[in-house]
Amino acid sequence: MIRKLFIFAIVGISLLRPLPAADYPDLASRLMKQGMPASGAYRLLTELTRIGARPMGSKELDSAAQWGKKTMEQLGLENVRLEPVTVPHWVRGDVESVVVSSRGSQTSLSATALGGSVPTPDAGITAAVVELRSLDELKSLGQGVRGKIIFFNRPMDPSLFNTFEAYGGVHDQRTDGPAAAGALGAVAVLVRSLTLTVDDVPHTGATKYVEDSPRIPAAALSLVAANRLSDMLKQDPNLTVTVKLNPRMLPDAPSANVVGEIVGSEKPSEIVLIGAHLDSWDKGTGAHDDGAGCVHILEAASLIRSLGLKPKRTLRVVLFTNEEFGTRGGNAYAAEQRPAEEIHIAAIESDGGGFTPRGFSIKASEVATRKFQSFARWLAPAGAGIFIEGYGGSDIEPLAEKGIPVIGFMPDSQRYFDYHHSVKDTLDAVNPRELELGAVSIAGLAYILSEEGL
Amino acid sequence: MIRKLFIFAIVGISLLRPLPAADYPDLASRLMKQGMPASGAYRLLTELTRIGARPMGSKELDSAAQWGKKTMEQLGLENVRLEPVTVPHWVRGDVESVVVSSRGSQTSLSATALGGSVPTPDAGITAAVVELRSLDELKSLGQGVRGKIIFFNRPMDPSLFNTFEAYGGVHDQRTDGPAAAGALGAVAVLVRSLTLTVDDVPHTGATKYVEDSPRIPAAALSLVAANRLSDMLKQDPNLTVTVKLNPRMLPDAPSANVVGEIVGSEKPSEIVLIGAHLDSWDKGTGAHDDGAGCVHILEAASLIRSLGLKPKRTLRVVLFTNEEFGTRGGNAYAAEQRPAEEIHIAAIESDGGGFTPRGFSIKASEVATRKFQSFARWLAPAGAGIFIEGYGGSDIEPLAEKGIPVIGFMPDSQRYFDYHHSVKDTLDAVNPRELELGAVSIAGLAYILSEEGL
Repeated sequence: MIRKLFIFAIVGISLLRPLPAADYPDLASRLMKQGMPASGAYRLLTELTRIGARPMGSKELDSAAQWGKKTMEQLGLENVRLEPVTVPHWVRGDVESVVVSSRGSQTSLSATALGGSVPTPDAGITAAVVELRSLDELKSLGQGVRGKIIFFNRPMDPSLFNTFEAYGGVHDQRTDGPAAAGALGAVAVLVRSLTLTVDDVPHTGATKYVEDSPRIPAAALSLVAANRLSDMLKQDPNLTVTVKLNPRMLPDAPSANVVGEIVGSEKPSEIVLIGAHLDSWDKGTGAHDDGAGCVHILEAASLIRSLGLKPKRTLRVVLFTNEEFGTRGGNAYAAEQRPAEEIHIAAIESDGGGFTPRGFSIKASEVATRKFQSFARWLAPAGAGIFIEGYGGSDIEPLAEKGIPVIGFMPDSQRYFDYHHSVKDTLDAVNPRELELGAVSIAGLAYILSEEGL
Repeated sequence: MIRKLFIFAIVGISLLRPLPAADYPDLASRLMKQGMPASGAYRLLTELTRIGARPMGSKELDSAAQWGKKTMEQLGLENVRLEPVTVPHWVRGDVESVVVSSRGSQTSLSATALGGSVPTPDAGITAAVVELRSLDELKSLGQGVRGKIIFFNRPMDPSLFNTFEAYGGVHDQRTDGPAAAGALGAVAVLVRSLTLTVDDVPHTGATKYVEDSPRIPAAALSLVAANRLSDMLKQDPNLTVTVKLNPRMLPDAPSANVVGEIVGSEKPSEIVLIGAHLDSWDKGTGAHDDGAGCVHILEAASLIRSLGLKPKRTLRVVLFTNEEFGTRGGNAYAAEQRPAEEIHIAAIESDGGGFTPRGFSIKASEVATRKFQSFARWLAPAGAGIFIEGYGGSDIEPLAEKGIPVIGFMPDSQRYFDYHHSVKDTLDAVNPRELELGAVSIAGLAYILSEEGL
């Protein structure tokens, strides 16, 4: 994968040659002059994170949607509205206990339920543990895992520059592991947290059960806990673990995507979408995931307005709901019946945290990709000059499936998984300059797209 | 300045076209595989910062030199040696007090003496304050500043992507302001700290007096203090400030550059130098400035050795002494009489902190610059693919003056001045992944240079 990325980067660079239709030599520096001193993005993120965590179905997620609507209005966006979406409503319980019993002594491990996990019985589930590195290993054991607790312990590959690639290499354990283990008769699953930092903080995230297959409880262990359990298993393969979790799945709840626009001055029915997701996990306050993305796009629109730029095409700002557990917001947006004349030129998502920009990742036709890559030179002064082929984002993937070009904002990823889905994802983990540069980069690209079209 | 940088970046990109003499497609990923899991650089930085701050003339700087020598030996470097250098010996006192008297009440401001400052009398210096934005303003006032305390309060420009440019735009206030104010009869100088973060931590740094001109005491104010003093002056232009400082300049002290090598397998007399400076200010523990640089180059050599790479030319690792106050180490290295057959191909310095790599900044002939830029593709996978024309580094600038190509490692600069020269520059401000990627990038470039020559 890294080889592939590298080749794309070079392709991206060589494709800088053809000049775009127009020149934007001062765009990035004008946006920086406007944005950097005031740090509008950081002020907005302070407001958003003050609401707290914004999990699916929560009143905080409702409050965040109201905040988003009010903020769009205050920033002078047009056609501000809530587009209703029904979302799952899962609630973490107050019991998250994983205790190892080995040779007469008990050891408590830091753990947290995976999002969507079923509860254990009140007395917990006690069983022997099988440590595995992959779903393939699980399949090869087949019915041999019956009655056991499966412990997926494959670490992220630290040698990859892009930590999202490292995440992509292991997250099947969390997403699909519990369903696969349940189907083979295992009784619970523990997963090594998807982070690169060895500390005692567990990282949650969604797990997906499969229809008609047994649903077994599942929790993430901190890296300290995962390493400790692995060490203890080497000493005592017959140890047992007792898992107690009491989360609940409630009936679906109302929620909404929040939409606002800068209506295009020449081609208002051609849309450049900039999006991020308003929901977060219930740990921390979702400052990087995806509070940073939300304020990136709000601040991007604000910068464009405050510079007096009049985009030719409509810039549509969308705060999606429920990315973290089912992508209901993204799906609903793509499924929505919209006016026949409306055309989406491209959609940009920010869901990689509030770190220093490196560039953008494009999923589009070859022609569109080349055209977008020709804009890289105008964003290099804001740090975002690397345009590679890749992924757009979860919320806009349903648009990609309809053939719409999608683009993911690509900030530096080194620290992202230190915070991701954990209690550490709070405002103090965000640097105001790094955050604002993201807004500047997205504003720049969105504006150029709105001028140049497809 | 940003326009200039931008143009160079584009030139750099277009110059990627000519292929270098050889290919290094796997070099960066091999170095990352070797370096990233173990985080050798972070382990070394833990050891170095445990020694403490390493100011000029201190026993900690001596300890750090001994540590550097022992570490080079442990890493298997050859010809490890100390090259003696005599350095200034300035010691901060225990009194650093700046108190505003306005309308009968006193307000204490967070301040710290500039490096090299003379002391005040025990009773302090009390005078009215003139707030200025530049040395030009000072000159225009001429003898009008006699008997006054000069307060230089020009802020860094937050809109510049590269914070070193913003630093370059204001640091004359600290470096040259006290000498210029003293020459006009001012009695003391206060300088706004050279940082972008509004907090109550003052940032020190060298000030330069001029021969035969009055030497007046000088201190840096935190940004909170600077903003407060500025506000108070608007309310009460007649307020007075009392400055008390008791630093001392002692006789010059012995110190040393620490040198080790991987001797070239084919052309041992051709040298590729990688350098950083071992000294720090007495605030914090110099984790980013320049502990990160020191461990970058040590770890770079270690990575090259542990991968079994045998550079054709000699890789020389140099820990310079006394960068912060006089660059005596860099000057002594360049002045040293060396064997007649010895040729320096290039010198690379890391003195921009331990953040995620972005690339390198080259000061060399056009031909050499183009050649070096052709290596960028091999370093892009480690994040360091942007090769611009620019500055090498303080310690290797004396080599540049002798016509030797110099190259500065260029990490992300957004957070650097949050920590720089302050109590906040400690190990916890360094991210192990970001740090190791710097070592990987420098190892890669140094190795390619050692293979390709000039």
